[in-house]
Parts: sequence; structure tokens; C-alpha cells
Amino acid sequence: MRILLLNPNTTEAITQRLLAAAEAVAALGTEIVPVTAPRGVPYISGRAEAQIGGAIALEMLAEHHDKVDAAVIAAFGDPGLMAARELFDIPVVGMAEAAMLTACMLGRRFAIVTFARALGPWYQECVEMHGLTGRCAGIRMLDEGFSDIAEVQEEKEAVIVQLAQRAVVEDEADVVILAGAPLAGLAAKVAQRIPVPVVDQMGAALKQAEALVSLKPRKASAGTFRRPAPKGTLGLASALAARIEHR
Amino acid sequence: MRILLLNPNTTEAITQRLLAAAEAVAALGTEIVPVTAPRGVPYISGRAEAQIGGAIALEMLAEHHDKVDAAVIAAFGDPGLMAARELFDIPVVGMAEAAMLTACMLGRRFAIVTFARALGPWYQECVEMHGLTGRCAGIRMLDEGFSDIAEVQEEKEAVIVQLAQRAVVEDEADVVILAGAPLAGLAAKVAQRIPVPVVDQMGAALKQAEALVSLKPRKASAGTFRRPAPKGTLGLASALAARIEHR
Amino acid sequence: MRILLLNPNTTEAITQRLLAAAEAVAALGTEIVPVTAPRGVPYISGRAEAQIGGAIALEMLAEHHDKVDAAVIAAFGDPGLMAARELFDIPVVGMAEAAMLTACMLGRRFAIVTFARALGPWYQECVEMHGLTGRCAGIRMLDEGFSDIAEVQEEKEAVIVQLAQRAVVEDEADVVILAGAPLAGLAAKVAQRIPVPVVDQMGAALKQAEALVSLKPRKASAGTFRRPAPKGTLGLASALAARIEHR
Amino acid sequence: MRILLLNPNTTEAITQRLLAAAEAVAALGTEIVPVTAPRGVPYISGRAEAQIGGAIALEMLAEHHDKVDAAVIAAFGDPGLMAARELFDIPVVGMAEAAMLTACMLGRRFAIVTFARALGPWYQECVEMHGLTGRCAGIRMLDEGFSDIAEVQEEKEAVIVQLAQRAVVEDEADVVILAGAPLAGLAAKVAQRIPVPVVDQMGAALKQAEALVSLKPRKASAGTFRRPAPKGTLGLASALAARIEHR
Amino acid sequence: MRILLLNPNTTEAITQRLLAAAEAVAALGTEIVPVTAPRGVPYISGRAEAQIGGAIALEMLAEHHDKVDAAVIAAFGDPGLMAARELFDIPVVGMAEAAMLTACMLGRRFAIVTFARALGPWYQECVEMHGLTGRCAGIRMLDEGFSDIAEVQEEKEAVIVQLAQRAVVEDEADVVILAGAPLAGLAAKVAQRIPVPVVDQMGAALKQAEALVSLKPRKASAGTFRRPAPKGTLGLASALAARIEHR
Amino acid sequence: MRILLLNPNTTEAITQRLLAAAEAVAALGTEIVPVTAPRGVPYISGRAEAQIGGAIALEMLAEHHDKVDAAVIAAFGDPGLMAARELFDIPVVGMAEAAMLTACMLGRRFAIVTFARALGPWYQECVEMHGLTGRCAGIRMLDEGFSDIAEVQEEKEAVIVQLAQRAVVEDEADVVILAGAPLAGLAAKVAQRIPVPVVDQMGAALKQAEALVSLKPRKASAGTFRRPAPKGTLGLASALAARIEHR
Repeated sequence: MRILLLNPNTTEAITQRLLAAAEAVAALGTEIVPVTAPRGVPYISGRAEAQIGGAIALEMLAEHHDKVDAAVIAAFGDPGLMAARELFDIPVVGMAEAAMLTACMLGRRFAIVTFARALGPWYQECVEMHGLTGRCAGIRMLDEGFSDIAEVQEEKEAVIVQLAQRAVVEDEADVVILAGAPLAGLAAKVAQRIPVPVVDQMGAALKQAEALVSLKPRKASAGTFRRPAPKGTLGLASALAARIEHR
Repeated sequence: MRILLLNPNTTEAITQRLLAAAEAVAALGTEIVPVTAPRGVPYISGRAEAQIGGAIALEMLAEHHDKVDAAVIAAFGDPGLMAARELFDIPVVGMAEAAMLTACMLGRRFAIVTFARALGPWYQECVEMHGLTGRCAGIRMLDEGFSDIAEVQEEKEAVIVQLAQRAVVEDEADVVILAGAPLAGLAAKVAQRIPVPVVDQMGAALKQAEALVSLKPRKASAGTFRRPAPKGTLGLASALAARIEHR
Repeated sequence: MRILLLNPNTTEAITQRLLAAAEAVAALGTEIVPVTAPRGVPYISGRAEAQIGGAIALEMLAEHHDKVDAAVIAAFGDPGLMAARELFDIPVVGMAEAAMLTACMLGRRFAIVTFARALGPWYQECVEMHGLTGRCAGIRMLDEGFSDIAEVQEEKEAVIVQLAQRAVVEDEADVVILAGAPLAGLAAKVAQRIPVPVVDQMGAALKQAEALVSLKPRKASAGTFRRPAPKGTLGLASALAARIEHR
Repeated sequence: MRILLLNPNTTEAITQRLLAAAEAVAALGTEIVPVTAPRGVPYISGRAEAQIGGAIALEMLAEHHDKVDAAVIAAFGDPGLMAARELFDIPVVGMAEAAMLTACMLGRRFAIVTFARALGPWYQECVEMHGLTGRCAGIRMLDEGFSDIAEVQEEKEAVIVQLAQRAVVEDEADVVILAGAPLAGLAAKVAQRIPVPVVDQMGAALKQAEALVSLKPRKASAGTFRRPAPKGTLGLASALAARIEHR
Repeated sequence: MRILLLNPNTTEAITQRLLAAAEAVAALGTEIVPVTAPRGVPYISGRAEAQIGGAIALEMLAEHHDKVDAAVIAAFGDPGLMAARELFDIPVVGMAEAAMLTACMLGRRFAIVTFARALGPWYQECVEMHGLTGRCAGIRMLDEGFSDIAEVQEEKEAVIVQLAQRAVVEDEADVVILAGAPLAGLAAKVAQRIPVPVVDQMGAALKQAEALVSLKPRKASAGTFRRPAPKGTLGLASALAARIEHR
Repeated sequence: MRILLLNPNTTEAITQRLLAAAEAVAALGTEIVPVTAPRGVPYISGRAEAQIGGAIALEMLAEHHDKVDAAVIAAFGDPGLMAARELFDIPVVGMAEAAMLTACMLGRRFAIVTFARALGPWYQECVEMHGLTGRCAGIRMLDEGFSDIAEVQEEKEAVIVQLAQRAVVEDEADVVILAGAPLAGLAAKVAQRIPVPVVDQMGAALKQAEALVSLKPRKASAGTFRRPAPKGTLGLASALAARIEHR
């Protein structure tokens, strides 16, 4: 099976991190197709950037959806996820969603640990969007600058581990999620220093995408995720316009 | 004061309806500045279109925000609202938000009545986003086609009134909101046929925008709605790029 | 338009503070009619006093409702609000309700900051009554005595600002509400020392009352806020008895 | 032990019904002291009347609290309950509260069945006030007039039983509460015609009051139910004024 | 009346503590029938032990239910409670449930204070099972070892009182529940050192069982707590098998 | 990898159905190890049977856990799931949990459709236990007898499909879960007759178990799912006793 790894950020180095984390757990026969956003911001870190990045994710899916069996939107706040699930026929998995649902099977409440304060409110709203507020023990954010988004996981590894340890002791988290695309792959490196299961967001998303492909769900032709009826568009990217117009 | 009436749909006739409804309740001295989306879809009616339309709303705000005192995003599902509130310094009001908060002061639970089934799920998620699920008695949707989005309120007036009446009797609604930009201005015409207060979405939004301007709130320099730090962008509309880059 | 400013406390000096805060934001043509409770307690600060003060507010409304276009119950816990909305035909706004709904348009979560510990539980129950628990970042109360209720806002200004600042940092509040009638008008004085928008309760209530009058909502003749059928009474204040008996 | 049966309605015949229902389950040695409201309305049936009736309940408690070991506020919506619990030293039980808590021990979700549509919204808000919304299967109200409030339980017995039966089948109620003081004592008469446990509101309240007296809880000197500090009053009933002023 | 005091732990000394606490508040004419689990663990302290202990409680009830009028499952997490209520005809009360419902009548929010960290998550899930999360101010657990489960209440009395005092000040608890069967009877000893009402779990449960017996509720023949239809069993304890098979 | 398929029912024919459904989606290299409960009931259908069956599931896991990489508790209400996750070191997945989490990735709200009314309340409590009430559109139960539990899916196929179709239209479900072990494998047969994705409970559980094994989560040594400290036992099944006693 072919799974689209859609990075809605413009930073190619993050795509490479995500790809490595995905390949580390991929099943035999899974081909991962990475794409990096051709426009947008280097890394999404708030509501405005997620609004824009989610729209760009739809443009990217319009270009690629018919060549893959499923897609992962590989930014932690799941920009454009529900929109994508409505507009396209293939399963689409959000990286935050997959990490959180996976964490639910490993404990009662999960903590989200991330590398920048700006990400917290966006992640919080993502937790709420998925209806998982009651399963979330809290969001812990690093409150200091970093040098390079592509290397932030190496630079901040020690303090991120400390945040995770505090989440276990102070927030009574049963599971830890290391959140934010630039942290993809970090879980494996630090798991033994954190006394509860640590979920890698990209690993979880890849396995969930594989699971959905295996289960072969049909596209809804009723309910709130059926494809919208054709509608005219003005000034949209051409593949996206074609999808909306049913051309 | 000057208030931007931002229609994220591309249909100019809807803008005119919104403008008329706003002018009907505007205070002396309020100038309304209508703008219609230069790109997008004729009327937003689902998650995917709202994702795209919300990003376009940000582009429009980036063009106009510095010439007005406040803005109304005049589509009922509030596309781009939280993003706009984060990115810009002026108060930004959502038409759904304003209608619901106003309705809260007129009763315990409000019903949302609209003209197309496709709108329901999007509106429901909007209610949840605002944390008002407990105040919403239900969403009633007309389940039949219409001829012309610009004339849907005349064409369907009778059945919409019937839906509203049923919402009062069957859902125990204390207040009715007639929802969806194409219905702007309808409330005044049908109010006497519905036995509870009927809120006009645009009227409510205009009054709330005026109220916020009068109260002169400062832009947050802390909390989750402070303006994000400058960040590079790639391929975004120029005014929006400038705003994100702090140029 | 004429708006009744109903102070359910017996302290005339608080009425004057409220009046000044209201006049500071009133629209051209708005006439504010202040009344002070003829019986009750100097300032309501708990459940028992609110039960009594709410009943007195109904007596006051029975005296004045037919001479005004709307009323504000100007105590932060909204004593008697739902009862008033049921019994009378004009819009009635609660000061807590108006402040909280206004705050909802300025951020995600608001903090309530007040000057006495006794007020906290009552305010908390008010937040719950309005279904806004999910939008409230917390209630911060000053925990020290004061000399004179009429001057408490000058006496405690510095510590109240500190509480507000802590609410922003520690509770992640996006908006601050300075709560309790004796603090009316304080927001404008301290807004620049608090890094998020500060809502003045009386200012918000006055603008919401104006908005409702402009929108001309009808009195419900169905739903849970229709006027109750006539019923005999025994020993009630005469205007209130007349209203209940439909005399 | 002595338990005050406080009827906040002015109808003596309802007090007698309540007394009979209480005596039917009272323990050996329990003396029930019935009092009927000296002012107010014949029977409370909405928010406004509950606001007034709750204040009157406080006046009645101020007169009688020091001669009894506990009190029951014997109207289903629990008017003045939290206020009474704050202001007085003895345990005070609400009839709705007691019925609902008792029902929680007999099943998962209880239905509330009552004799008049006007009562529904008030009861609903009472359920919410107690935080028991998740345990309530619904409120069913008789939608037809009655001849005499004192005889409504005989007049409407058959239709009330039908409503209860429908609540079991259609709302999946595990327990039924027959609500509204005029229905006191009806549960015992109809229990065998309803296929789930039926809770008598007055019976439950009396047993809960007895239980609290037996457990000898202390009056809080901290927390939100400690007695408020003394405060001056103006124009209140003399016993109530004395209690508030700590005289 | 006869009330079964069912200790699902195997420690006879705890049964004696429970019995003493029950007898201290029992009404004249109440006979308490204590039984100790014949198999299981000395004291249940987590999810796995509660799963097992709940099944054992059903075996014990199958042996004894027809000789008593009601039963109390006397472990704080209420192991097997809903199952017992479904399977047997007599009222069954949980010790946690009874303590929490009783606490609801004494304040707004209760704190649960217990003697071992392992108990916290189980108790938390019990609070959630009863739908009382909104009424719970928090769970405070002693975080240190103890010498002998049968004497833990004497050994740790001072620190448990301190935890309770902190719950009042820091968690704003209106009521304190001393939780865990080994603490039965402690409430009476320490009540005067804690400034809010303290509920004894066994005392509350006994009084609630008495109340239910007095109210004579019928066994449901409909709804979700009707007795399941007969079904074959394999390898179950003989009395339990007989009950399930309707023999 | 080896995955234990633990059927807590005693009906071997159901185990075979479950096994076939699991094998239909298993990855290359996954070995499924089926075990049927040696004692209990033919099929669990309520709270009491789940209490007993969950304890038996623990006995079965104690026998088999050290020979597999993960386990699935293959009854829809997840009997013993949280207990198992606490007591053992391998990942344990519940069939209801897996189906619901998988459904969350395919739509907004899922409907649960099952073959017997008795199952509804147990499933509802399972939904609540997982904190997914907000994602559940409702539970639809067949309300008629069946001939043979092992053949119920063939016998009732047509009416189950009708229930699913009604759930889509009337409950606005985006996804359907066919629930109850005897329905394992039915989803694939009927998927094209239901206009939204249909999740097979066993297929979902198998894929989730595989995903967890691939992600290699560590066993918690802290948090609420760490293994309890050793404790003595009395009269328990020997492997379970050994596990609890750390022998």
C-alpha cells in the first residue's frame, strides 16, 4: 500500500525526520510518499498559520490523493483534517489524532509535551476538537527559544525529557506524547528515560493509516462526511478547484 | 466608527443582503464597509469550503484591517474567526458567535434554523467551538433544493418559519436564530410569526462589533491571542504575507 | 432609549460608580435611569444575600419596567436574572452575563478577578448557570479586608492588578473581567497595566442592553420564558403582586 | 429528632399531603414540624416564583431553625436551598435533591414526571444545579389543565402513570420520580403500575434529613458554606435580618 | 430490618472496624449482618483487584441476599455495585456512592482523602462512574508506607487530618470524605479538627441502606436494572450460578 | 508477532467467528492465538456477567500473557480491560475500544448497532468509560429473540442492516459499528448496503493490537497503570494468584 506523508510545513528537513520515523515502524509492503508544502510557513505554530496551512493541505491532497491508498497530515494540530476527510475518498489520518487515540489504548490520560509555548493553545483546541479533553492530563510546553527548527529535538532533548517526567509526576499522566512535527522520531530515543509509554506521533499515524487501509472502509455516501455536491469556484488552485467542481 | 463587513463568499448579492440587514440596526455614526471575497466559492457550506474560505478571510482582513475599527466575518460558521482574532489588532466578530451570544441573553436555549442540510454539521461544530453546546436546543435544516442562493430567503420563507415553529414546540427553544448569510434580514420579516425572539445574525454581529469598539479593548500582548512573532512565508497573498512577516 | 440601571444593593455610592461607568460608553441618545435597592444589604456577597437580593430586584423591576426599554441588573452574580427575564416583557441583562459574553468575543478563556473571597463561590455558580464553565480560566479573589466598600477599588487597585497579571500568566487567561459592582469603572484605569483585554462589567452590560433594544426582540409567547399565567399572591410587594396577578 | 417540613407554598392542603407522606416513612422518634409559607403564591411553578419563594423560605427558616435538628424545603425545585445551607447551622435538604440522590442508588438514570408544563424548565435547571444532568433520563410533563392544585394527584393519577410508563419505555429510565409537592404520597399508590422503582420525593427527603441528623455533621467554619460574616440589613423580615446581622 | 455489611476484602479486622462504624449510627431495630470475603485479597487497591473483588462480592451476595433487606458493599470503590444492583432484588448500596451522595447534601464539592497513592485512580474512576466529577474537589492521597492495614487509621491519623485540612484550603472542598474501608470510623474521631463536615463512609452507607429499605422500592421489571433472563453457566460458584440460571 | 485472541465467553463457535474476522485483516507474520473462556457464560450480556467475565479474562491472561506480544479481549463491552492493562506487561486492546477509536478516524460520530436489547446499557457504560460519549451518535438494539447465538448474524442480517441504515438517517451517524462478538465478520458482508463506513470490531482490534506491538511501548513503571506491588491472595486461580503475588 502507498501512504501519503503530507507535511503542511515548507521545511523539507522536517519531512525527512517524519519519513524516518514512519519508515521505522512501517509494515512490509508499505510505501511512504513524502511531500512538503510548496507554500506556507516553515512550521505552523498557531491558529492563523493552521487556518492557512490546512487550506494548503487540501491543495496538496487534491494533487496527490488519487495516487495513494491513504494520507497522513503530518502536523500535530491536524490542520485541515476534517475538511480533507469530507472532500476526499481515501482515509486521511491526523498526526495528533493518531497519537492521541493510540495513547488512549496505553493508559487513562495522556500528556502532550512540546517544544514551544506558541503551540499550546492550538494543540489544546485540537484535543477539544477530537472530544478527548477528558483523556488529556495536560499540555507541557518548553518556554525558551531554540536555534533551528530542524535540530530542535537534539538541542532540547534533555529539557523535553524533564518536562515529560514532570507530566508523569505532577499531572498523573499515564502516557506521554512528544508533539510537534520537528520532534518526530524522538520518542524512540528517550523512551527509556520516561517511566510511562511514550507515543511517537508519526509512528502512530503511519500505523493507523495502515490499519485503515487494511480495514477497507468505504467512502461515505451519506452522513456528514459524504463528498459535497459540485460547486463553482473562483481563483482556487487548479487541482483543488477541479475536486470541488467534480471535474 | 468604521466596521468591515467581510463576506467570505464570492456572491455580491449576499453582501448586499448583509449590508441591508446591518444598516437596519446600525447606530448613528457607524459606517459599514462591505467587501466580497475575490476568490473562493459562491457560498460556503461545509468543512472543506470553510477551511478554504477562512484562509481567504485572512487575506481579506490583511488588505483592510488598518482602515477600520472592527470587522465582522459574515458567514454563519465563523470561518477563520479565531485565526483572525490572533493575527490582527482590531476586534473581529463572527456572525454565528454574535448571534448565539445575543440569543443567550434572550432565553435559555436557542435553535438554529437554516436552509440546507449540508450546513448542519458545520454549524454544529461551530456551536461546539464556542463552547455553547449546552445552550443550543438543536439545528433544524431545510431538506429540499432551492433555485438561487441569492433569493433563497424569499423562496423558502414559509417552510423556514415552519421549521422555526417546530423548533419551539418540539425542541423547546426559547430563541430562534435564522442562520446562513443568504438569510440575512429575514428575521425582521418573520418575527411576528414565530412565538419566541428571533435573532438576525447580521444585526447581532453589527451591534456586537459596535459594542466592542465602544469598549475600546486593547490588543493582547500576552495570552493565546497575542500576535505571533514574525515568521517567513512562501507563496502567500502579499498583504497576508506582510502581516505574518511583520513587514 | 431608556435603560434601567438596577442596583440590587442598598449602597447609593455604588450606584453612582455604576452610572459613571455606564455613561462613559453610552451611545448618543441612551438615557440611563439609575435606581438603588430600597431594602436588602449594602452589597450582596453570597448565596443567601443573592436569593434575597434577586427577589428585591423583581420588586424593583415591577416598579420600573414599564418606563424603560431594557434593564441591567447591576450586581455581578446576576441575582434574579432568569426570573426577571421570565416575568417582564423588556430585555433584562445581567452584569456578569454581559461581561462574560463580551469577553468570549475577545479571547478563548476569561479570568474573573474580584476583591473578596466571599464572592468566589457565588460567581462560580453564576458562570455555571450561564453554561460558560469551559470558557472561564478561573476566579481570583483578593484575600484581605478592606475599609469601605464604596472606595475598595481605589484602596485595592494595585493588588487587583497583580491578581489580574497572575491570572494571565498562571491561568492562561486571554481576557480579564474585573468583577463586583464596587469595581465598576476600574477597567479603564488599569487596562494598560494588564497585557490582555480587560472588560468593564457595567460598560459591557450597558452596550449589551443597547444592542438588544436596537434588535427589537419580541417577548416570548411560547418557550420557557413566556410570561407565567396569572396567579394569586399573598403578602408580596404591591407592584410585584400586580405583575404576577396580571392586574 | 425534630425535622422542619417547610412548605414554601401558601397552600395548607399541600402541607398536609407532604406531612402524610413524611409520616408514612418516618423513623420511631422522628417528630415532623410542618410550616406553611405565610406569604407568596399557592404553588411555585417557575423561575420568578422560585426566586421569591426561596427568599421566603429563608424568612421561615430564620423563624424556626433553632427549634429543629434539620429542615426539608418541600418544593421540588429546591427554592433557596443553597442559600439556606449557607446561612443556617442545621442540615437543610431539598426535596428535589433528596429524590434525585435517592434515585441514583436505585438505577442509572431517573425520569422526572410532573403534572404541569410550566414546571419543566425550573426542574431542568434544578437538575443542572445539582450536577445530575447525566443521571436524568428526561422530564415528562402533563400538558393539560387541572381543577384544583390540592386534588391534582387524584384527578390526574391515570395520566401521570401513563407518562411514567412512557418514560421507562421511551427514555430508558431506570427509576421514576413523581415530582411537585402536590404529588406527595402518590408514589406509594401507583408503584405497582410502574415497572421500575418509584421514588416519593417527600419520603426520600425525610429519610435523608434523618440520615444527616444521625451522622451529626458539623457546620462548616471554612469552605463556601461557612456562615457569612455579619452584615447590616435594611427592610428585611426581622428574624432573617437578625440572622444576617448575627444578632 | 437486616442489612448485610459485605466486606469484599479478606481482612476480618476491617470488617470489625466497619461494623463498629455502622453500629454507631444504626437506627433502633436495624440488625447488621457482617460478612468477610472468603477469598480475594486483604484489601482491594486498584483496578485488577476491584475486578476480581467485585466478582467475589457477587458470590457473597448470592449466598446472603435472601436473608437480608438490603446490602452495603463496603469497599470505597464500589466493586461490583452496578452488577449487584442488576442481579439481585434487594437494594444494594456502595460505600463510595453513599458517602458521595451524602456529601452532596452538605456542600457543593467534596474532597476524598485516603491513605495510599494506589487507591487514587480507582477512586477517580468510581467518581466518574457515578457521574459526580463536577461535585468532586479532588482526591488527596497519603504518599508513604504503613505498617498494618488494620491499624493504618491510628498510625496515620495526624497526616490524614493534615491532608483534609489542605483539601479545604487548597482545593476549596466544602465537605471531606475519609475514604477506604480501613479508615471506617475515623471521621468521628477527627471531625473537630477539620473545619468542614466530614462524612464517614460506612455511617453514610448504613443510613442510606436504611433509607432505601424504609422507602420500599420495588425491583425493576423493566429498564436496565431488571434481572437478566436465565442463562446457563459453567464453573461458577454454586450460589451465583443458581442465581444466574434462575434455579 | 503473536496476538492472543481472548474470548471471555464460553462459546467456542464465537471464538471461531472472531478468529476468521481477525485473520481476514492480519498482516503477514501475525500469528493469532485464540482461547475460549473455560468458565463463565455462553455470551456476556450485562453488567453482572461482565463483572464475572472480566475476572475470568484476568485468569486467562495470567495463563497466556507470557507467550504472546499483545492481547485482545474479544467481547464488545471490554470486560476487565483496564484491570488487565494494569496487571500485565503486554499491550491489551478491548474490542469495543478499538472499534470506537478506529471509527473516530472515519467520521465525527459513530453508531453502535447490536442484536439484543440487553446489551445496550452495558455498551453505553463502555462508551462512557472510554470518554467517547460525545463521539457516539447512539446505540441501536434489535428488539426480538433469536434462535442460536452462534448463528445470530445470519439470522438477523437483514434487520441489523436496517437498524444501521436508520442510525445513519435518524441519528446522523457518520460511521457504523456492528457490535457484539457474535457479529464478528458481518461488517464485510453488509458494508455495501450501508451508506457510511462500517467498522468490524474484531478487525479493528487486531489491527490496533498489531499497531501497538509495532510501536513497542514500554510497560509503565509509574502512573496509574504501573504493575501493583505484590500482595497476598486467598482462593484465586493459581496463575492469577501468582501474578498478583509476583511469584
